[in-house]
Amino acid sequence: ATTAEMHKQLSDEQLGDLIEASLESRENSYSPYSKFKVGAALLTHDDTVITGCNVENISYGLSNCAERTAVFRAVVQGYRKFKAIAITAEMGNKFVGPCGACRQVMAEFGLDWEVYLAMPNKSYMKTTVGKLLPDSFSPDWVTLG
Amino acid sequence: ATTAEMHKQLSDEQLGDLIEASLESRENSYSPYSKFKVGAALLTHDDTVITGCNVENISYGLSNCAERTAVFRAVVQGYRKFKAIAITAEMGNKFVGPCGACRQVMAEFGLDWEVYLAMPNKSYMKTTVGKLLPDSFSPDWVTLG
Amino acid sequence: ATTAEMHKQLSDEQLGDLIEASLESRENSYSPYSKFKVGAALLTHDDTVITGCNVENISYGLSNCAERTAVFRAVVQGYRKFKAIAITAEMGNKFVGPCGACRQVMAEFGLDWEVYLAMPNKSYMKTTVGKLLPDSFSPDWVTLG
Amino acid sequence: ATTAEMHKQLSDEQLGDLIEASLESRENSYSPYSKFKVGAALLTHDDTVITGCNVENISYGLSNCAERTAVFRAVVQGYRKFKAIAITAEMGNKFVGPCGACRQVMAEFGLDWEVYLAMPNKSYMKTTVGKLLPDSFSPDWVTLG
Ligand SMILES: [Zn+2]
Ligand SMILES: [Zn+2]
Ligand SMILES: [Zn+2]
Ligand SMILES: [Zn+2]
Repeated sequence: ATTAEMHKQLSDEQLGDLIEASLESRENSYSPYSKFKVGAALLTHDDTVITGCNVENISYGLSNCAERTAVFRAVVQGYRKFKAIAITAEMGNKFVGPCGACRQVMAEFGLDWEVYLAMPNKSYMKTTVGKLLPDSFSPDWVTLG
Repeated sequence: ATTAEMHKQLSDEQLGDLIEASLESRENSYSPYSKFKVGAALLTHDDTVITGCNVENISYGLSNCAERTAVFRAVVQGYRKFKAIAITAEMGNKFVGPCGACRQVMAEFGLDWEVYLAMPNKSYMKTTVGKLLPDSFSPDWVTLG
Repeated sequence: ATTAEMHKQLSDEQLGDLIEASLESRENSYSPYSKFKVGAALLTHDDTVITGCNVENISYGLSNCAERTAVFRAVVQGYRKFKAIAITAEMGNKFVGPCGACRQVMAEFGLDWEVYLAMPNKSYMKTTVGKLLPDSFSPDWVTLG
Repeated sequence: ATTAEMHKQLSDEQLGDLIEASLESRENSYSPYSKFKVGAALLTHDDTVITGCNVENISYGLSNCAERTAVFRAVVQGYRKFKAIAITAEMGNKFVGPCGACRQVMAEFGLDWEVYLAMPNKSYMKTTVGKLLPDSFSPDWVTLG
């Protein structure tokens, strides 16, 4: 299957389940410092759902986001190829993308997979890893004389 | 059960299984940059074994060690209390402790649990999270005049 | 001065100097693990140039990139507002953007400043922090029924 | 000079100045999330003082501590060898050591240099990088039968 076809395989039902899984995973969030619970659910190439939540640390810099937690879990389970990730947080009325660190960790495993930024009410915004971390293949470069 | 009693519950068989689990987890290590495979296996307060491996990134600073991966996985599964962790790597003839970042992440969930630094041949060294990250409650302080 | 006007103030000479400073800073790169030297030079709102280089660690995850080093240095010197950053590395013939972690750290101090990805031969590509870390304010969101 | 002799060269005056520098550096702390200002001052092998402060990020995991900031700054300035670091924070009546990530970053540049945990009132506790990050060369290892 091409990547395009692979993405077609993500049905509304699968997406609903993925968002639901990310919502449930928020419950295990360990976020005593930010009080900000985030959940994520990764859909692997073989349609396995692997969840994550944020895990904070008293030394803030050692905190790990939900998205990275999900990716790390997946790798331990032998996965390296993903179709999609759903990320859920309570952010008022705004969709906010993953932090740069998570984008980088997701990009390690391909740019061409989908990212669903979702809210507890299940509204969502769809993007891709590649769009979230543009490689700057933009054309406006020159050679400095 | 007191912590001391809890630790007594870690039988030779459990320790052997824990080291074995950490060895098996190394197989899923994603370490194309360092070529250095590390595995970890965490024993939760209820005797569940949760494994981890290192997951590297082309931007080295986004790499995650096996120990932290195991802790993050455990938190997603609802655990916050641990008896022990076994960490396995091929380091020649030397036992090397976890990196400081992993010590800090482990310490978030208590200082009084055991760390087994093990080798593929199953020889091991035993220490604790608290010993690996002394809080510097040492007594040699003074007030500068 | 508006931001647009502020950017106009970055003359060809300033840009040349900024790239030159980033190149010089590469010389202090501590990169024994990747052998990949990166330099950065930040231009503050008051036209001060503050450089950075990558500083690696035997535990790869504790490595710090040149861009973040430059930002951290600037903050220590009291700066919080930047016009531009030049980043130099030897990457063959390709311009490669900063890693996600660096994009996130730069974005903490504004999205509307310039990023110059440069090569030792001083060819460069121009982008901005905001373009490198799109917040996903894209319009294609729906509510899942 | 041996390391021992080198350490002798850290006079009371130097230590007082180092703590003072770390206190001053706290003023530039960028810590809108934790509201916890930390300062550090590094003494290089040639008696140069290089300061640092913590620089936080809205994605907590991208935050950088004062100690690491100081080390990164020093490396950019060409330093790789240090005599001592003073770290200052307002922690009530308790001396608290650096986080594990900072210990790891300091250890990259040697174990045999001094760490002064200080308070705004200039009381301090003295330890070393090596003591803060024991390599677990302790002797209580056995081979699992
Ligand atoms: Zn993140
Ligand atoms: Zn580690
Ligand atoms: Zn970077
Ligand atoms: Zn720290």
